[in-house]
Amino acid sequence: MTWETARMNDKARRSSEFDRIARYFAPLAASFPGAFGLTDDAAVIAPADGTELVVTTDTIVAGVHYIGDEAPDLIAAKLLRVNLSDLAAMGSRPCAYTLNIALPSSIDDLWLEAFARGLAEDQETFGVTLIGGDSVSTPGPPVFTLTAFGEVPFGAAVRRAGARPGDLVFVSGSIGDGALGLRARQGNLGGLSDLHRTALAERYQKPVPRIELGKRLPGLANAAADVSDGLAADLGHIASASEVAMTIKAASVPLSPAARAALCTDARLIETILSGGDDYELIFCVPPDLSCAVATLAKEFSLPLTKLGVVTRGSGVEILDEDGNPVLLATSGFRHA
Amino acid sequence: MTWETARMNDKARRSSEFDRIARYFAPLAASFPGAFGLTDDAAVIAPADGTELVVTTDTIVAGVHYIGDEAPDLIAAKLLRVNLSDLAAMGSRPCAYTLNIALPSSIDDLWLEAFARGLAEDQETFGVTLIGGDSVSTPGPPVFTLTAFGEVPFGAAVRRAGARPGDLVFVSGSIGDGALGLRARQGNLGGLSDLHRTALAERYQKPVPRIELGKRLPGLANAAADVSDGLAADLGHIASASEVAMTIKAASVPLSPAARAALCTDARLIETILSGGDDYELIFCVPPDLSCAVATLAKEFSLPLTKLGVVTRGSGVEILDEDGNPVLLATSGFRHA
Repeated sequence: MTWETARMNDKARRSSEFDRIARYFAPLAASFPGAFGLTDDAAVIAPADGTELVVTTDTIVAGVHYIGDEAPDLIAAKLLRVNLSDLAAMGSRPCAYTLNIALPSSIDDLWLEAFARGLAEDQETFGVTLIGGDSVSTPGPPVFTLTAFGEVPFGAAVRRAGARPGDLVFVSGSIGDGALGLRARQGNLGGLSDLHRTALAERYQKPVPRIELGKRLPGLANAAADVSDGLAADLGHIASASEVAMTIKAASVPLSPAARAALCTDARLIETILSGGDDYELIFCVPPDLSCAVATLAKEFSLPLTKLGVVTRGSGVEILDEDGNPVLLATSGFRHA
Repeated sequence: MTWETARMNDKARRSSEFDRIARYFAPLAASFPGAFGLTDDAAVIAPADGTELVVTTDTIVAGVHYIGDEAPDLIAAKLLRVNLSDLAAMGSRPCAYTLNIALPSSIDDLWLEAFARGLAEDQETFGVTLIGGDSVSTPGPPVFTLTAFGEVPFGAAVRRAGARPGDLVFVSGSIGDGALGLRARQGNLGGLSDLHRTALAERYQKPVPRIELGKRLPGLANAAADVSDGLAADLGHIASASEVAMTIKAASVPLSPAARAALCTDARLIETILSGGDDYELIFCVPPDLSCAVATLAKEFSLPLTKLGVVTRGSGVEILDEDGNPVLLATSGFRHA
C-alpha cells in the first residue's frame, strides 16, 4: 500500500496523514508517472531497455543511527545519500526511491516540511524521484526506511565478489572524514581548528555518493563496495566475497587536510580513520592493464582515485605500515571469511 | 545497503546481526540469484521480458498495527500478505520482497526463528523470495517494513483511476471478517460461537491475498483496489481517483456465515463490516459486456465474485439499504474527492 497509514489504532490519525502526504510528499513524486501521485495501491517502475534494477534499502532509528538533534533536512539527505552510495557501488544509475516513516506525535509539520525540503534538494542534485512509501505513527523514536532503485546495463552490476589476484585496489576521495566528523559533532577533536572541525562534521552529516564514478565501474572494476562500515571492514567484505586476500599500504590511504591535521594531534586516530566508516567513498578492484583508465576517470571527475594496494591469493586484508609491519585494528568489526 | 546494520552506536551488535541474517534470513533468499546471498551492497532484479515492476511497501509497529502478543510467524505472514494484496490489486504477479527490521534487545532468537518460519511458509505458498533488507536495533517497539515487487505486462497495471460510468462493481470473497476478527481477538463478540469467533480471528490474522484473481484483472477491470481501509473507504478511493460516483447495495455485500451470525447478534455491526477494513479482498470495476468473464473466473477459482453496484457520473459512494435509503457511516474515514 502506497502512502496509506495502516489501520488498527490509526484511523483517527489517518486523515491528517493523508493531508501530510498530499502536502509534503506527493510533490516529490509529481514527475514520475508510475508513482500515480502517491494515491494508488502501488507504483510501477520499468527499467530502461537493456537494463535491470538494482535495489538497496536502509533503516535508521533516531538516537541510534543519528544523534537526534540533527536538522531534519540533513537526516533526510543522509538517508537518501547512503542508499545512493550503495547503488553507485553496484555500478548503477539511481532513479527512484520509496520512503517509509514511523513518527511519534512529537514530530510536527515544521519538522516534516524541513525533512521533505532536504529530500527535494537532493532529488534535484541526484536526479531521483520519490515513487511511494508509507506513513504510520509510533509510540517509539522516529524510524525511517528508504529503499532506492538504480538502473544498470543487463548483467553488468559490479558485485563484491569478482576481485582476482593481481587486481589493483583503488579508493575514491578521502577516508576517515566521516568517522572523525562524528567525533567532531560530539564535541571531540578540540585540538583542531574550527575550519577543520566543520569540514569533518559536514562530511559526516552530508556524505557525497560517488554516483558518476559508480556508473563507470561496469566493464572497469571486477569488484566494488562503498565504505560504510569502515575501510578495513569493507575491504574485508570484498576479499571475503571474492575469496581473495588484499595487501594495503596504510600510508597510501588518502586523507583530507582536516583528517591529516587530526592525525597530527593524535596518532591513535589512525584507528578511527581506517575502521570508523561513514565515508561513502567507493573501493574497487581493477585489472592492472586497466589502471590507466582509472587515472583518466580521476582527471575527468577531478576526484582523487588512489591506489591502496593489491589483491593476492589467500584470505583476509593486511594493512601494512611504512616498515611493512601489519597495522592491528582493535575495533574494526572486520570479519574474515 | 543490503542486510547490514548501520554504524553509529550499533557496532557492538553488528557481528551478532551478521549471524542472525546468515542464520534466519539468508536461507529465504537462497533461490534468487540477484539477492547474492544477502551479502552484497544491493540486489538486482530484472522483470521478465515484456513486463514492468510493481512496487508496494508497508510499515507496521508493534502495539499500533498488531496487538503485540501475536505469534511471530503470524505477524510475518500478515505483513507479507497485505503487501501481496496490493500487488494483486494492481494486476501483478508477486515475485520478490525486501524486509527491514528494527528490533529492541527483548526480541530473542526464538522469536526471530518463528518470524522467519512464517516468511518461509508464505514464500512457498505465494512463490515469492526475499532479496534484501536491513536489520537494526531500536530502543522503541519493533518496527517492520516490507517492500514487495510484482511483475505486470508492460502498461497493463490496473489502477484505482480508470473506472467509467456504466461499469459494474465487483468484490471477491466476503467482507467484514477482518474487522470483526480483530474484535473477536480483543475478546468481543461474546454472543458468537467459538467456531465463528475463531473463523473471524483467523481471517484477521492471516488474510488471503487474491493473487490468482489479481493476475487476471488486466484487460478485464478498468480499475481495482484491495479492501484494506474498509469497503466504503476503498470504493471511495476508486471513485475519487476515477472521478466517478458509485451506487452500492448494502444487501449485496457478501458476508461469511460468521459475519452473518455476528450481524444477527448486533445489527449495528453493519458499520464495522462496511468500514472496518483489513479484508484484503479485491474490488474491481468491469464494463458490463465483460461481466460474463467475471462469472467464469468465479467458477475457475471457486471464489465468490459478487456484484455490489454500478459506477455512475458524479462523485462519492452511496451505499443504499433495501428501501433505497443511504446507509450513513459514522467512522468510515471515507474521504470524498
